[in-house]
Amino acid sequence: MRLALTLARDAAVAGEVPVGAVITLEGRVIATASNLTRTGNDPTAHAEIVAIRAAAESLGQERLEGCDLWVTLEPCAMCAGAIANARIARLYYAAPDPKGGGTEHGARVFDHSTCHHRPEVYAGLGEAEAAGLLRDFFRERRT
Amino acid sequence: MRLALTLARDAAVAGEVPVGAVITLEGRVIATASNLTRTGNDPTAHAEIVAIRAAAESLGQERLEGCDLWVTLEPCAMCAGAIANARIARLYYAAPDPKGGGTEHGARVFDHSTCHHRPEVYAGLGEAEAAGLLRDFFRERRT
Repeated sequence: MRLALTLARDAAVAGEVPVGAVITLEGRVIATASNLTRTGNDPTAHAEIVAIRAAAESLGQERLEGCDLWVTLEPCAMCAGAIANARIARLYYAAPDPKGGGTEHGARVFDHSTCHHRPEVYAGLGEAEAAGLLRDFFRERRT
Repeated sequence: MRLALTLARDAAVAGEVPVGAVITLEGRVIATASNLTRTGNDPTAHAEIVAIRAAAESLGQERLEGCDLWVTLEPCAMCAGAIANARIARLYYAAPDPKGGGTEHGARVFDHSTCHHRPEVYAGLGEAEAAGLLRDFFRERRT
């Protein structure tokens, strides 16, 4: 999660909403990403999606079975859906997102009987730091 | 929707689950896509995501305000989230997807109070043809 927080900080420096994501397989980092929606002109380029695409490309396969995703913010519905589609084994996220989250808030994507794959979910690791990065980013934008 | 159905047929020929998507702006086609998850080794490469990325790149902006998305199958939670994130104005889809859909089934992504943007949704146009393509595809795979 420390690496994901560093990637979130990189995103903030680039003027992006500070979210970072890392994918590991058997303890080894196979993909890292920062949120890239603004610089990439890509509404799908949340850190999780960018990391999932990079990991799948790196492994040369569509499914990321056995992989863990570490992200600094609760995934939105799009990213939660992608995590299920990619068969990510474990999801670790730092800060909850009551306004935009899709796992413990909103659409609660993993909680429906039709969800094809439900990862193990662990929340709260590094929460204060991740939430602080977001708070500082939006505070600066408002002033 | 006719073009989206042709793209779905192209997907089937390529060995992909037959789903096609088209994005229009003021009646003009600005992006087309077939489902590419297998050939691209990319679990996020549903037709909707590929089309949204292409449209945003083509317009040079992150948000697809005023754009319409035409897709042959009810979007899953990932794609519904992407449609909301991209601020697509109108969603037209052909066949419902009781097992994997995320708009009228499952996570019902647009129905939550925290959903940042809710497109107008029109279902059923070309439904029989889209459903037939999927049925034939999976029937051939099973035999």
